[in-house]
Amino acid sequence: MSLLVVGSVAYDGVETPHGKVERMLGGACTYIALSASYFTKVNLVGVVGDDFHSEDEAILKDHDIDLAGLERAAGKTFYWQGVYSNDMNDRETLRTDLNVFADFDPNLPEAYHKTPYVFLGNIHPSLQKKVRGQSVSPRFVGGDTMNFWIEGTADELAETIREWDFILINDSEARLLSGEHNLRRAAERIQQMGPHTVVIKRGEYGAILFRPEGHFIAPGFLLDEVFDPTGAGDSFAGGFMGYLTEQGVTNLDEASHVHLRRAMIYGSVMGSFCCEQFGVGRLRTLTREDIDKRYEEFRAFTEF
Amino acid sequence: MSLLVVGSVAYDGVETPHGKVERMLGGACTYIALSASYFTKVNLVGVVGDDFHSEDEAILKDHDIDLAGLERAAGKTFYWQGVYSNDMNDRETLRTDLNVFADFDPNLPEAYHKTPYVFLGNIHPSLQKKVRGQSVSPRFVGGDTMNFWIEGTADELAETIREWDFILINDSEARLLSGEHNLRRAAERIQQMGPHTVVIKRGEYGAILFRPEGHFIAPGFLLDEVFDPTGAGDSFAGGFMGYLTEQGVTNLDEASHVHLRRAMIYGSVMGSFCCEQFGVGRLRTLTREDIDKRYEEFRAFTEF
Repeated sequence: MSLLVVGSVAYDGVETPHGKVERMLGGACTYIALSASYFTKVNLVGVVGDDFHSEDEAILKDHDIDLAGLERAAGKTFYWQGVYSNDMNDRETLRTDLNVFADFDPNLPEAYHKTPYVFLGNIHPSLQKKVRGQSVSPRFVGGDTMNFWIEGTADELAETIREWDFILINDSEARLLSGEHNLRRAAERIQQMGPHTVVIKRGEYGAILFRPEGHFIAPGFLLDEVFDPTGAGDSFAGGFMGYLTEQGVTNLDEASHVHLRRAMIYGSVMGSFCCEQFGVGRLRTLTREDIDKRYEEFRAFTEF
Repeated sequence: MSLLVVGSVAYDGVETPHGKVERMLGGACTYIALSASYFTKVNLVGVVGDDFHSEDEAILKDHDIDLAGLERAAGKTFYWQGVYSNDMNDRETLRTDLNVFADFDPNLPEAYHKTPYVFLGNIHPSLQKKVRGQSVSPRFVGGDTMNFWIEGTADELAETIREWDFILINDSEARLLSGEHNLRRAAERIQQMGPHTVVIKRGEYGAILFRPEGHFIAPGFLLDEVFDPTGAGDSFAGGFMGYLTEQGVTNLDEASHVHLRRAMIYGSVMGSFCCEQFGVGRLRTLTREDIDKRYEEFRAFTEF
């Protein structure tokens, strides 16, 4: 089984109370792909500029991520810079240079067309729809979005998510998309828009899986120290989709409900690891043993 | 087994997006006692004025709550009035008339002295210490506090909680009391101050139990509608302590760790019911069957 991931590959500048890094590998697609790579083969679709370092490419290749879909365009790679508040609950964007990402027009290499699992990262909904259209009968397809598209391209977004099996979204985005404050009703409303599976992320408080047959609450992991939360939500997405791909889950059988719950925990595990070092530092050095050990910790602190 | 509860018995005026009630039975001790009454016999210690209605006394008596420790003083009953924001996450206090509660000087009736379980509600730490002193070798004793005492009477509070087995506190209070933002470290610091068992409440996100042997995370229940969150934290306390009292838990045996986790879930169950109607409306009409049914729902949406 393999997983297609489309989204931003970027350089990030990040400042947290624990330090400051001027420029390091980042971008939603990078985090999702690295996180998922511990579970499955990943086919990446993105764009970088001519300033993209071979060392950063090597990080992705070392995790057996297929880069046939990584376009190299003339110009600079997407750059984002932000600073976190002392309690890490807020961040301020200091700079967003879209650069080559502004004209990103994803095209799947022939070899990617039949990838059975598809995660459409946060890009223009029409581009997400286009990638979905190039996929040949995927088994499980969905993605995420953000306030910018919910507010600015509501019609295109509605068109796009109508075809999705699942959506991953944070709580404020879920409220904005649904027009409902209550998360239960927000999820119901979003399910009516298309995806039968809605995952609402709540930052440090964990995430909730909503399915027609009921919901499942995954708590956040209590870290001793959060060094850098950048990419935690994307790492969650990578763990969630990576595990489902590994298990070959579809929506048609009873077992998939159990796997979806476990995928929520693997997502939470990967999100928690992500925060332990700056950028992709921790996601580079994990082992599947580390991951499974933390998964068992989740069981230990939730069982009653 | 029985549970001693000391704290405020009051009248509340509450406005939420769902309505407004000018005057209804309230107070931390009332919520704790009613909630715990579904699990155990409760011995109440508090004070009311000569305006306290016999109908309200009847509500407590109907739940087999012992009122030998409810003092009737000349003057008016404690009155609190507040209004909630649209999303229920903030509330503004419009009025606090301490009235007879200002001179509250709790004294345990003789019959209460040997109550094995003791919950010291949010009053001046020196009064909490006094009640603790009147208790004859309780099996499990602790309570809660608030920002006002943490900031204003830090020394007295430290003296008081040194003797406690447990403390129930919300996340912002835990941070203030410990001087640590990270909840894991905040709990460790508080454990060093006395209580081996620290419960940190996180509002709609649930609560965390910290014990020397590890922690346990209880999620919040996803309600379709929150009518009035007043008293939810106190109802949690009542469910938590009520269940532990029912089970006769001490800290000395292995089984108590399992019961502490279950007590966290029963606490969450009672907190969730509390929000379903104004004031003590829902806490009056519950059955143990309702409670156990929701407890099983917690299992259903957390198991993986």
